[in-house]
Amino acid sequence: MRVLVPFDAREPNTRLAPLFDTDQRRDLAGVLLTDVLAAIREAGHEPAILSTEPLERDCPVLVDDRSLTEAVNARLVDAELPLAVVMADLALVTPRSVGRLLDAEADVVLAPGLGGGTNAIRVEHPEFRVDYHDGSYRKHRRAARECGAKCHTLDSFRLAVDVDEPADLAEVLLHGRGESADWLREAGVELSTADGRCSVVGPDE
Amino acid sequence: MRVLVPFDAREPNTRLAPLFDTDQRRDLAGVLLTDVLAAIREAGHEPAILSTEPLERDCPVLVDDRSLTEAVNARLVDAELPLAVVMADLALVTPRSVGRLLDAEADVVLAPGLGGGTNAIRVEHPEFRVDYHDGSYRKHRRAARECGAKCHTLDSFRLAVDVDEPADLAEVLLHGRGESADWLREAGVELSTADGRCSVVGPDE
Repeated sequence: MRVLVPFDAREPNTRLAPLFDTDQRRDLAGVLLTDVLAAIREAGHEPAILSTEPLERDCPVLVDDRSLTEAVNARLVDAELPLAVVMADLALVTPRSVGRLLDAEADVVLAPGLGGGTNAIRVEHPEFRVDYHDGSYRKHRRAARECGAKCHTLDSFRLAVDVDEPADLAEVLLHGRGESADWLREAGVELSTADGRCSVVGPDE
Repeated sequence: MRVLVPFDAREPNTRLAPLFDTDQRRDLAGVLLTDVLAAIREAGHEPAILSTEPLERDCPVLVDDRSLTEAVNARLVDAELPLAVVMADLALVTPRSVGRLLDAEADVVLAPGLGGGTNAIRVEHPEFRVDYHDGSYRKHRRAARECGAKCHTLDSFRLAVDVDEPADLAEVLLHGRGESADWLREAGVELSTADGRCSVVGPDE
């Protein structure tokens, strides 16, 4: 199955600014992308990057500088279905977890992210369109209902964690199996178990 | 299968103090417990509360005021295996998600919580003992290895979210199907989608 991986390298991971400078954040975004592409391929599917600017990678790169919603919906028009969209910053993704998404049987399969986003979606209904940002999970449930599509929510922790805030890096160190976890360790980020949930301390702390 | 549900009503959910007073937090803890017990029963299993103090509920209540680790390990000695332990504050739990845990086949099955805890565990190895707090997920992986137990980590978002911080309440409003979500709505807690991940605003905000 064709799997779109949206990628915007312009200002990646701004909420990690307390820990990393812009170059490091770009570098981390690239490593996260590598992990996601590898998991999709190992699950037996074909990733294509949907990028805001040209990019050198060993897979098709579709350049589209419109908003995420517009760029994805443009691909859903007359697409060969099913088509999936998997975010580029899912550091915990494994072939098995992405396989659970891509093998699920429903017109629309949603993998919610922490905080109500949609980290991954598999679309098999010709009328369904995406609407990202501001609690997209609920919007996608509604959109599926409105076009009569059977909708399934996948119960996956590995697809729910995206890299957005410093606390997410603790999950990467705890559960990541790809290059992102190694990158963080090499950057000097360490787990901190001082109080309740694990968090991280950065190289300068 | 017997499923222990540890419950400590003494100082529940202190991190929700910005939103609720002590009585409300006790009330919420009770409603969360109700949801967890219901999901276990609907999955066809038998919950028993492991409580720090006497409690009136329509299921067995084992009173033990020792630490969580000591109280659970006391039950693992000479227990009829498998035995499971499911935390009382998993507001997103459903019969299906708890069923995935209880039906999984391994000597030790772990459902990690956000921040490296262990939100649920199924033990079928006679020598395995728990060690909660301070990143228990990694400690449990190590303990399984050390006693030669085959260990499986369950990939579940519904079991990963416990109610600890205000941001967790957004997940309850987004995905909860039990009384806890209703309780929050009645208490005046609402989703806020202002910036990035959804959060909540409380009744006085």
